[in-house]
Amino acid sequence: MTKDKKLRLGVMLHGAGGNMAAWRYKNAPADASVNFSFYKQLAQKAEAAKLDLVFVADGLYINEKSIPHFLNRFEPLTILSALASVTSHIGLVGTLSTSYSEPFTVARQFASLDRISDGRAGWNVVTSPLEGSAKNYSKLEHPSHQLRYKIADEYLEVTNGLWDSWEEDAFIRDKKTGVFFNRDKMHTLNHQGEFFSVEGPLNISRSKQGQPVIFQAGSSEPGKDLAAKWADAVFTGHDNIEQAKEYYHDVKKRAVSFGRSPDEILIFPGISPIIGRTNEEAEKKYLEIASLVTVEDSLNYLGRFFDHFDFSQFPLDELFPDIGEIGKNSFRSTTDRIKKMAKEEQLTLRQVAIRVTTPKTTFIGTPEKVTDLLQQWFKEGAADGFMLGNAVLPDGLNDFIHYVLPLLQERGLFRSEYENDTLRGNLGIPVPKNRYSKELYFNK
Amino acid sequence: MTKDKKLRLGVMLHGAGGNMAAWRYKNAPADASVNFSFYKQLAQKAEAAKLDLVFVADGLYINEKSIPHFLNRFEPLTILSALASVTSHIGLVGTLSTSYSEPFTVARQFASLDRISDGRAGWNVVTSPLEGSAKNYSKLEHPSHQLRYKIADEYLEVTNGLWDSWEEDAFIRDKKTGVFFNRDKMHTLNHQGEFFSVEGPLNISRSKQGQPVIFQAGSSEPGKDLAAKWADAVFTGHDNIEQAKEYYHDVKKRAVSFGRSPDEILIFPGISPIIGRTNEEAEKKYLEIASLVTVEDSLNYLGRFFDHFDFSQFPLDELFPDIGEIGKNSFRSTTDRIKKMAKEEQLTLRQVAIRVTTPKTTFIGTPEKVTDLLQQWFKEGAADGFMLGNAVLPDGLNDFIHYVLPLLQERGLFRSEYENDTLRGNLGIPVPKNRYSKELYFNK
Repeated sequence: MTKDKKLRLGVMLHGAGGNMAAWRYKNAPADASVNFSFYKQLAQKAEAAKLDLVFVADGLYINEKSIPHFLNRFEPLTILSALASVTSHIGLVGTLSTSYSEPFTVARQFASLDRISDGRAGWNVVTSPLEGSAKNYSKLEHPSHQLRYKIADEYLEVTNGLWDSWEEDAFIRDKKTGVFFNRDKMHTLNHQGEFFSVEGPLNISRSKQGQPVIFQAGSSEPGKDLAAKWADAVFTGHDNIEQAKEYYHDVKKRAVSFGRSPDEILIFPGISPIIGRTNEEAEKKYLEIASLVTVEDSLNYLGRFFDHFDFSQFPLDELFPDIGEIGKNSFRSTTDRIKKMAKEEQLTLRQVAIRVTTPKTTFIGTPEKVTDLLQQWFKEGAADGFMLGNAVLPDGLNDFIHYVLPLLQERGLFRSEYENDTLRGNLGIPVPKNRYSKELYFNK
Repeated sequence: MTKDKKLRLGVMLHGAGGNMAAWRYKNAPADASVNFSFYKQLAQKAEAAKLDLVFVADGLYINEKSIPHFLNRFEPLTILSALASVTSHIGLVGTLSTSYSEPFTVARQFASLDRISDGRAGWNVVTSPLEGSAKNYSKLEHPSHQLRYKIADEYLEVTNGLWDSWEEDAFIRDKKTGVFFNRDKMHTLNHQGEFFSVEGPLNISRSKQGQPVIFQAGSSEPGKDLAAKWADAVFTGHDNIEQAKEYYHDVKKRAVSFGRSPDEILIFPGISPIIGRTNEEAEKKYLEIASLVTVEDSLNYLGRFFDHFDFSQFPLDELFPDIGEIGKNSFRSTTDRIKKMAKEEQLTLRQVAIRVTTPKTTFIGTPEKVTDLLQQWFKEGAADGFMLGNAVLPDGLNDFIHYVLPLLQERGLFRSEYENDTLRGNLGIPVPKNRYSKELYFNK
């Protein structure tokens, strides 16, 4: 890591905010998750603050117990495309599952977003944790955790291949001679694998950042391997610097074992900072946010990680119940963490539910305190950047921009102007060379 | 048809234009098909002229013989979403195939576009004519014509059902009580059919136009039945008023047999008018456009309709060759028409190729002549509106807006202001009632 490298910042766009009851927050529009003006306003605000990217998460199954934001929300590719034409520099990253989609379509839609935005697209590759997804996609059963990661690996082989269908200079477009393209610079993929057979070529060419930036968020063993092999950036859930460092070094080491440079893969812990002018004010904000969630809702939310398990059958103020292996095929790393925390700290069901619905982040306090922490994580090798999953919007983002960004800039940790107009350019990661290209490779 | 009904107008956005060599046209950007500024400029121009909609076609397979525009172009959902945020009234209609996609994803992406655009989305349902599509989608073979239409029928049953997942007033969003939605107004579909099983509910609610407008363009028997059963609007290829009338009445009659009102389904012949201040000027423009296409390219283009059949093996100036049944599973109605025309008029291969690549439209001549024709087609029951597939852009659209629109307006045939801000509202077709809703139905 060179001395003058800046930290990168992304912001989650998730309706009224990351807290499950964020829609109840006083300054949030209650219909935020389907309110285009609100999304546009946040994206433009993030761009004015020179953040690297906005990030839209996703899911493919809901039921009556899903959190409000999941019931009714924009689909990532469409909302990001709509934001592309009202922004000019900020990256546009969205989640899409490799377990319930076709690589030809997905390679194409992200490539199209990448062309529309002139090199600002990113794809967060997920394998769909929710068992119920199968029921919306005509499948008898949800593939196992292991199988999903095997599929994802081959899927990325296909999409990466399709993105190389056209060399940079394939299109000649000489009006005089009528020569539109150079046949030798168009490439069919002819992929024949275990899960997919895709001939190609893709019917859209590369953007000026080469191909969309690949995000990945898996933290299980196969998840980390998938990230280390394919991802440009990894979104992770740690709130503790020691664990974050361990994860950081683990993934970078794995990347090296795949023949990559550790600098080519950026680690973004997802954090939800709560900023006050004093520590007391920050604390008060936390309590205000926590109080938005009802007990009933928090038990539902907890159950979501365990295949919609019904926790309301257990007494609230007794120790967190032993529910065996339930949930091991869904959000495995999250459920393992919850169980471990409950056991180690001897927490009751109510305590676990509150911690899970409104985690008390490490990044809480005065602007100086939060900036110190960000700096420490960045300098000590726990993070290359952060994904801001503000508990409530727009206030969480406003506070961060107003109080923390100027301090980060003062300390030389964050940009005042975009260095580039592509997402890869701003993240400082290379433009992947087209596998067929004979020209020397220059990072644009 | 009431007297004061206006005709509707849509415009195809297809790169540099409908002619296969449109990219060579003097005023077109040669990279039009991946030039977002150009798409934006056209959409905004069409909106300023109060046209009903822009239309983006699609395809899922290319090879070296595909026409230039197909090799490298935007994907419909992403480009339409990007246009949604830079327009406010014009409809946004895009093609998507039911043969190579999942109804849950597609229902959701179009619903999301519909929410982002606040009720302006439309979906042109196609079944993918190109055999090669299977090779990009891990399929051993392309489904037969008949099977594709059977799949499409069930597919639309699913998407229509998913769009009713949430009744209009399902979301209460009471910040005080914490009640976000009314469980009784959320509906699971539980579809179990021959091709799909989809539980639902969809994770996005209806827009103010209820659901996206359904376009369909099939002209085979199963195609017309699918349109009559499901479509709000039908896009057809006739350039001859008698055939167009026959088609118009055929489809409306079929709609009635499905229990619908004939006014609920609008017929849009696709036309490529060529306007000159004099007939001679129009003729000159036609010749200029036809001269853009090389003989080699025109043979390739012709072959595309016949499963990429290689016509260059036959002499150019002898009668159109008998090639048997080739192409019957692809663009069947087009290939039948081509063969019939060649036989009846005893055309050579060269003549057929020129006619197919640069058809000499009926709608060629002075503004008065073209306006007279549009009026005649509209008044005599051959069309409810027209889809402008201008041979070259931006000039084709500019000419139409500059010369023909004022005449249509003078004659009371076209609007001067949008009547509504949804696509259904402007087309004058009803908002579909939610199947679960007990409230009376009002067209908004």
